[in-house]
Amino acid sequence: MEKIRLDPNQIPPMPVALAGTVVAGRVNFMAAGWITRVGYKPPLIGVSINHRQLTGSGILETGAFSLCFPGPALVEKTDYCGLVSGRNADKSAVFDVFYGETPGAPMVRECPLCLELRLYQTVELPSNRFFIGEIVAAWADGEVLTDGKVDVEKYQPLLLTMPDNRYWSLGRVVADAWSVGKKLKKGDDHESTGH
Amino acid sequence: MEKIRLDPNQIPPMPVALAGTVVAGRVNFMAAGWITRVGYKPPLIGVSINHRQLTGSGILETGAFSLCFPGPALVEKTDYCGLVSGRNADKSAVFDVFYGETPGAPMVRECPLCLELRLYQTVELPSNRFFIGEIVAAWADGEVLTDGKVDVEKYQPLLLTMPDNRYWSLGRVVADAWSVGKKLKKGDDHESTGH
Repeated sequence: MEKIRLDPNQIPPMPVALAGTVVAGRVNFMAAGWITRVGYKPPLIGVSINHRQLTGSGILETGAFSLCFPGPALVEKTDYCGLVSGRNADKSAVFDVFYGETPGAPMVRECPLCLELRLYQTVELPSNRFFIGEIVAAWADGEVLTDGKVDVEKYQPLLLTMPDNRYWSLGRVVADAWSVGKKLKKGDDHESTGH
Repeated sequence: MEKIRLDPNQIPPMPVALAGTVVAGRVNFMAAGWITRVGYKPPLIGVSINHRQLTGSGILETGAFSLCFPGPALVEKTDYCGLVSGRNADKSAVFDVFYGETPGAPMVRECPLCLELRLYQTVELPSNRFFIGEIVAAWADGEVLTDGKVDVEKYQPLLLTMPDNRYWSLGRVVADAWSVGKKLKKGDDHESTGH
């Protein structure tokens, strides 16, 4: 099929998180979708934040932040935190806040999974700063665990797509990873040692 | 609810892509999930790649790569590209390959959406290198567009979750973003100018 050339500004589906910070002494949360794990050992995760957003100031100030993953019940509050800047509104009481061992990483008790992060590295980019955090600890509700591990069918993470600007749940299981492709292996194909 | 402290190595749901490179003259594809947009203008997207993986050598060699987003029909081939290293197998004929204007960025014709990328910056991390690419162009099948824009309901992106190691489709629409949270705004809450 012939391909049609589009505007380069395309955005893959994103996991939705609340980025928690303490900015000038006040707890703040923003909705964040530009997130990915970037390192395995130590466990690193990055979030890209526009220079205009208050969250970046908080991370630079305290050297810490959090990423908490809301389920469908929190979609209104999550979206509110994406609509309204901490410069214009006090979002410190939107959620019930808890802490692990890192004072600059306030977390959302209503979220089934939270990551407590220590700033590891910043990457300066023209419109954004990419903050890489080392995961100090993960905190989860017991009810979203199966055999001690986070079960996505129980915690129901939200995904965000653009430009249609919609929050989604996960749908059906299409296949098992590191498994369904085995049938295409030829005799001399060795599996990668990479993860 | 009391939180339970878990292993920090937690991974949010990930978009699934095929990262295309030319390594020592041969086209190669790997399955990649550690991906996020990191900049709006210029349009930047990053992918984190383990030092052991051949893809990183290709990106450094040519200063280019691609990210193509497969639909459910390609799940076996995508998984195969994640199971088998280009060091051990020639993956150059797994897909029908096409190019835009960047020689080091081979793309997959069977994928409904492909991004052609020029290497913008690399970030060195202990186990991985985070490659930030500037999106030179996006290429899509006409049949996944609605009003000239990529429609996720038509192209059906794959998501990957770990540690359960499963590929998923998107599910139901939970709510509209930058919209459902408006009902929580108070009189003096101004909307953010950030995106």
